[in-house]
Amino acid sequence: MTRLRIDLAYDGGGFYGWAKQPNLRTVQGTIEDALHKVLRVPTDDAAEPLRLTVAGRTDTGVHASHQVAHLDVSDEVLNRCVGHMTIPVTEALTRRLKAVLPSDIVIHGIAVAPVGFDARFSALERTYVYRVADRSSEVDPRLRGCVLTVDEALDLELMNRAASLTIGLHDFGSFATPNPGGTTIREVKTAYWRRVPITPLVPDEMASHEAYRTPSLESGLVVFTIVADAFARNMVRSLVGSCIKVGSGRKSLEWFAGKMAEPVREGSSGPIAPQGLTLEHIAYPADDQLAARAEAIRAVRTL
Amino acid sequence: MTRLRIDLAYDGGGFYGWAKQPNLRTVQGTIEDALHKVLRVPTDDAAEPLRLTVAGRTDTGVHASHQVAHLDVSDEVLNRCVGHMTIPVTEALTRRLKAVLPSDIVIHGIAVAPVGFDARFSALERTYVYRVADRSSEVDPRLRGCVLTVDEALDLELMNRAASLTIGLHDFGSFATPNPGGTTIREVKTAYWRRVPITPLVPDEMASHEAYRTPSLESGLVVFTIVADAFARNMVRSLVGSCIKVGSGRKSLEWFAGKMAEPVREGSSGPIAPQGLTLEHIAYPADDQLAARAEAIRAVRTL
Repeated sequence: MTRLRIDLAYDGGGFYGWAKQPNLRTVQGTIEDALHKVLRVPTDDAAEPLRLTVAGRTDTGVHASHQVAHLDVSDEVLNRCVGHMTIPVTEALTRRLKAVLPSDIVIHGIAVAPVGFDARFSALERTYVYRVADRSSEVDPRLRGCVLTVDEALDLELMNRAASLTIGLHDFGSFATPNPGGTTIREVKTAYWRRVPITPLVPDEMASHEAYRTPSLESGLVVFTIVADAFARNMVRSLVGSCIKVGSGRKSLEWFAGKMAEPVREGSSGPIAPQGLTLEHIAYPADDQLAARAEAIRAVRTL
Repeated sequence: MTRLRIDLAYDGGGFYGWAKQPNLRTVQGTIEDALHKVLRVPTDDAAEPLRLTVAGRTDTGVHASHQVAHLDVSDEVLNRCVGHMTIPVTEALTRRLKAVLPSDIVIHGIAVAPVGFDARFSALERTYVYRVADRSSEVDPRLRGCVLTVDEALDLELMNRAASLTIGLHDFGSFATPNPGGTTIREVKTAYWRRVPITPLVPDEMASHEAYRTPSLESGLVVFTIVADAFARNMVRSLVGSCIKVGSGRKSLEWFAGKMAEPVREGSSGPIAPQGLTLEHIAYPADDQLAARAEAIRAVRTL
């Protein structure tokens, strides 16, 4: 049996989230179907389930630029994908998956996982970014699938004061969908809002001397970056929605502070639209810490 | 009668190009329909045609981040869009258009055009950018609608040597769809290929001290920038396709040089896929030069 680490990306716009659900197009379901196909394993083969375990179970419409999953597969089955090629089995599987996966899923790489690696439980921290176009952004329609447009002017200083209240170990019960039996206590490492400066797509020193400089697509967007050990259900989108209420003047900073101080769901803003949200990164410890980390996390977290 | 200058952007993926065609969804057709609606002018009103003149007539599937058009409209009709609002007529029209246009068209601004302005004939130069992901780009699936993915390693140095051959006044007959009665002589001001460096979305000095830095979406892409007074039909996409043939080793630099030296269509590569191409900018002269420029260009160009 070999455990593979799969690094991948997807445009969440066409999926009902990561987690497999009957009769719905999901990322997990699409990739597992592709695995069964290229490894020639019937989907009802109990000895070879080809089940993916993922670091961040994204919701409907949420994107991932750098998602990580693991897969346990028997060596006999895995070797089937090499065929007549003289390349490593991981590269053979990557090529075959690319050939059958739709264009909204991209496999960045497949590797044999180090001993003790668990995509979900070994993870140290997760980075999410939420992209917003406000009244002073000149939003490019090519990005409308991964940016939320709001018709207001946003006060980033106020939003950063709200964001800074989330840093540290807190109960995010006001910003999470209830999870019976689970905890909503999480540790936020950093959280901040920034406006992306108008930046040339090609840096000055590389460009020729034309008068007009094409800006990078994300120039002028307002982006929220948040890093935490893990996130409660809908936590990032609820925090973003609440920060935007503060930044547009519809709610006060005190209202936000109250929600942080008293972790109750009632009266908080629900999750904002999913298309602005992207899972950008999963951090893992050094290889010799993977198993210990997974064991420690499994012990404390049921979510 | 007032002449308006309209600055706009669109995702070309859902349009059969700019130019209005019966029974096809086009950018011009969509905006003109919206104008008739918000200004309450019947579409068959010969006295008030509400016809847009555009700087760059993009083809099916080609995007525009900064397109410019002009519109002549009688003051009586234009004033209809103000209604009970106490704002300038150009702002009123912008708001009403935004309310009815689909999300793949964005109006950046509407202004009363300076005397002598003609969106098409006053233009000094046009900037197009073509975005490619090659084998060493880690393409983000969210950008697949505006990036062409090629499964090859591209030699940018060779491609830049090809691109540099296009600079200056040349007959681009080898790279243009024939235009009976028109010329394919154009003046290319600059043309170059660059790989976008891996750049943080939020610059270092603005970010907090997290370990992982989210890269901007276009990091690692290979982009072609070309600026010319004007372009012959399919010229940019044919040049891009030919440069990629050179950069991937399928054709030699000498082959490209031969096509430049002998402007014949036969044997050249046709236009490459449209989704990588975006009209990024139109440059106009100072206001007091607009009319003279338009007169000079009208005299020499029939295309």
